[in-house]
Amino acid sequence: MAAVDHNCHPLLASGSPRSALELRRAFTEALDPVVIESHTPHLVAYRHALRRIAEALGCEATEESVLEARSRVDADQLMQQTRTGLLILDHGYAGGDAMTPEQHAAAVRIPQREVVRLETVAEEMLHAHHEIGTWTDAVTGELRARVRRGAVGVKTISAYRAGLRLSVPDPDLVEEAFVELHTRAESGLPVRLEGEPLCHTVLFAAAAACAELGVPLQVHCGFGDPDEDLALTSPLGLRPLFVDPRYAQLQVALLHCYPYHREAAYLASVFPGVYMDLSLAIPMAAHDGARALSEALGLCPLSKLLYATDATRYAEVFLVASALHREALAAALGGLVDGGWLSQDEAVAAGRAVLAGNARRLYRLD
Amino acid sequence: MAAVDHNCHPLLASGSPRSALELRRAFTEALDPVVIESHTPHLVAYRHALRRIAEALGCEATEESVLEARSRVDADQLMQQTRTGLLILDHGYAGGDAMTPEQHAAAVRIPQREVVRLETVAEEMLHAHHEIGTWTDAVTGELRARVRRGAVGVKTISAYRAGLRLSVPDPDLVEEAFVELHTRAESGLPVRLEGEPLCHTVLFAAAAACAELGVPLQVHCGFGDPDEDLALTSPLGLRPLFVDPRYAQLQVALLHCYPYHREAAYLASVFPGVYMDLSLAIPMAAHDGARALSEALGLCPLSKLLYATDATRYAEVFLVASALHREALAAALGGLVDGGWLSQDEAVAAGRAVLAGNARRLYRLD
Amino acid sequence: MAAVDHNCHPLLASGSPRSALELRRAFTEALDPVVIESHTPHLVAYRHALRRIAEALGCEATEESVLEARSRVDADQLMQQTRTGLLILDHGYAGGDAMTPEQHAAAVRIPQREVVRLETVAEEMLHAHHEIGTWTDAVTGELRARVRRGAVGVKTISAYRAGLRLSVPDPDLVEEAFVELHTRAESGLPVRLEGEPLCHTVLFAAAAACAELGVPLQVHCGFGDPDEDLALTSPLGLRPLFVDPRYAQLQVALLHCYPYHREAAYLASVFPGVYMDLSLAIPMAAHDGARALSEALGLCPLSKLLYATDATRYAEVFLVASALHREALAAALGGLVDGGWLSQDEAVAAGRAVLAGNARRLYRLD
Repeated sequence: MAAVDHNCHPLLASGSPRSALELRRAFTEALDPVVIESHTPHLVAYRHALRRIAEALGCEATEESVLEARSRVDADQLMQQTRTGLLILDHGYAGGDAMTPEQHAAAVRIPQREVVRLETVAEEMLHAHHEIGTWTDAVTGELRARVRRGAVGVKTISAYRAGLRLSVPDPDLVEEAFVELHTRAESGLPVRLEGEPLCHTVLFAAAAACAELGVPLQVHCGFGDPDEDLALTSPLGLRPLFVDPRYAQLQVALLHCYPYHREAAYLASVFPGVYMDLSLAIPMAAHDGARALSEALGLCPLSKLLYATDATRYAEVFLVASALHREALAAALGGLVDGGWLSQDEAVAAGRAVLAGNARRLYRLD
Repeated sequence: MAAVDHNCHPLLASGSPRSALELRRAFTEALDPVVIESHTPHLVAYRHALRRIAEALGCEATEESVLEARSRVDADQLMQQTRTGLLILDHGYAGGDAMTPEQHAAAVRIPQREVVRLETVAEEMLHAHHEIGTWTDAVTGELRARVRRGAVGVKTISAYRAGLRLSVPDPDLVEEAFVELHTRAESGLPVRLEGEPLCHTVLFAAAAACAELGVPLQVHCGFGDPDEDLALTSPLGLRPLFVDPRYAQLQVALLHCYPYHREAAYLASVFPGVYMDLSLAIPMAAHDGARALSEALGLCPLSKLLYATDATRYAEVFLVASALHREALAAALGGLVDGGWLSQDEAVAAGRAVLAGNARRLYRLD
Repeated sequence: MAAVDHNCHPLLASGSPRSALELRRAFTEALDPVVIESHTPHLVAYRHALRRIAEALGCEATEESVLEARSRVDADQLMQQTRTGLLILDHGYAGGDAMTPEQHAAAVRIPQREVVRLETVAEEMLHAHHEIGTWTDAVTGELRARVRRGAVGVKTISAYRAGLRLSVPDPDLVEEAFVELHTRAESGLPVRLEGEPLCHTVLFAAAAACAELGVPLQVHCGFGDPDEDLALTSPLGLRPLFVDPRYAQLQVALLHCYPYHREAAYLASVFPGVYMDLSLAIPMAAHDGARALSEALGLCPLSKLLYATDATRYAEVFLVASALHREALAAALGGLVDGGWLSQDEAVAAGRAVLAGNARRLYRLD
């Protein structure tokens, strides 16, 4: 069935990868050139991805052949093979060469919606506001405006910028950090929102706004690129969002989660607004991403698991991630049928729910 | 063989569940009505439990059929199907409708013993004592008296009330917290023991008393209902109980443990007094509870794993939990035989030990 | 193929185990006599090890038969059966009865190299230096000298002595701890380096020295004997070593890792200098050690996983650990071939890399 990919990123305008290094970068969270040169080729996930892409392109499973064959194939043609019914795109992470929403809609014949990246908005709003309060109001005002214009959710990458061990920030530290960053912004220097005081302040403000707007807050959890300290990214740190009555209506989509997916599944089992996915772990963690999906289904209700690729830049990433995710889901659900845990009908219904139904309900897509 | 269920709770006097919501509440740690209404039915564990109960009752696997068929079946009749030789009951968690020990013994034809819930005793003793020292003495005195009258162990739910990151509490904070709570108690207001200073003070005192009395201290670890912060419930936080010579004779039964079961198994492998179970994870975490049991057997000696259902309220919970626990154990041990890790005889002996022998030795039941 | 065992310890001069208790101590991290007397015999890993050794010796799988048969077999004869091409030995952990490097080289016909145990060097240098700075200089000077004389790496057991949550120690606390320990050393009292201020100071100094010398720093991570607090031993705490430019050239071998092996694999996937092994977990965690190896291969590049036994004292430990490690690796890689993740050729190449190639490159053995 046509899936809803609730968390992915735009393709590059430049099209297909031009070198082996570009191809490898698409299948690892590593940023270091030595890793990509010497170790990424030895990832199980990368070895497998190469073979998958080669199969789709009808060429040999070598980097040279894949790059050559790929340069003659249109991105949209590969995107169609992912059997995706809707892309929910985060345009906040991209870099200069990423397609704009308009370009993307024109280039890829799959319906598309947007989520707003919180930290990008917060950074953009910084130079125009002299006080914390007016700044956070401006940020939530912008989120409201973007949702009014069609955005279906908000995304935070606080995991990278401050970690996820939430507590109410000390107002003095918030003030101090704000003055420093605002001064930079006013001087025209580039600003990067980071540190608990500011990041958690805007995160709490955005959570309240999302609760009010009725759109989910996507939270990057678990592993990612080495800018983050993995020790600070367990979704258990988000507990204040789940127990404080101010956020009672908030819906949170925990993204990636690995290796904290059992913890994420627990949260999904007891808190009404918590959803989760295993994107990024599938395909990056190869067979162990598939095992993580099965582990998560221990506690996560079948109505709370979401499908996503977290793919970015190249259509082949969508292709590999979508195929592996469907297979991991089929393997996990098939195993549950074989083990007598679910009936065949329940497993089929669960597959449909995870691939599309849960996201359609959560993001109010119908 | 007849199992020793070393950690379970009394049935309700009202008998069978009267509604789908009551039935669902029995198979989830969620408390939120939205979760129970909309998501608990989509738990793998709940889908499976429905089918198990329907099979036992000879009816269709729908909530309506199960509720109807169940209303005509006696709780004790289902309890007999669990093949349990002894129930070790925690009457401290119940609510008004739970059977008293006397009612329970009359209603269920299975031998029964009790564990004392520490926090309940500590709350009851609060109004009569004006000083910390006399209060904790009264608490341990009551534990001693209850053990003399037949209790086989003490149980702590510090995980819910304060977390398990034990350290010696600051005396000033203890005093302050005590005065506040005692004042409430004297005013006739309801009191709830919570926070590290008081909870850990009574936990250390109870640990010393248990060591002296020769009865195990049961400690809720890992997941549970959302009152607890899962991040604070790893059994690794209990280390002071394992390395401080004052508690050298203490025996601790780590309950549930998931998803910290590998950590619990490690503790069981190196500290003489540490035992563990996978109750609650089986049946709540479905197939992943069974996998967790296999994971725990990596380090946990076969002489240290205990069997329990953590069942409560309804006989069908005992029925499902006991069946799944036996199957998980059979699968794990069978897998070890298939993999050449254990001989058939060793696996059979291990099964007997886990189902009953280990608990009989630990609780001195013979 | 002949493996490189990059992390193991010397045999005892006294030869084979003389009692069941000695045999059991070789297959557990427990130190407590009650555990070893009553529970170690019930470890899956120990049951299995007994059978393995009995098979190799052609005797019955009982402790008595094994001890008797073993007393007639030469250690070197068993060591040859491990098909090891090189032993990288840590002579720092041993006790009085361990063979010296010279004795070991004479007794075991397998090429041998050494790693230097940091904490042992730091303790030995303590009495001769009155200031922190000259002491750490002397420590790194000794590391340099030992590497010049042939040592291929440095090993830290900071996990036992201070935990692995690294941050730059407070200079005042460092000074205070140094004065106290130095005073003990000057008085001729035995000294034990422990606590974050001193342990992390020498760890950072050693890391800088290793980076400069081009030799890897081995770091004990994850489980071990109960001297350590497992909660403090996640390799994620080592992040300062991976992101601080001062250590850009540092190569780190994360030893053992269990149950933090998914975290270790993540670090290996993004940081160029991070390698890991599953020693100790294999064989101590039996089947779950093998599962951990498969889990680690989710993110860990095949070029970054190392083979080791962590064996010590008796040749039978080398025998069992080496056999189980090869089998775990074969099972994990075979599973990847069966699941379509790797080709047969890739799996074979990966096996060779893990068993020897990766270590040969990392330790510059060729």
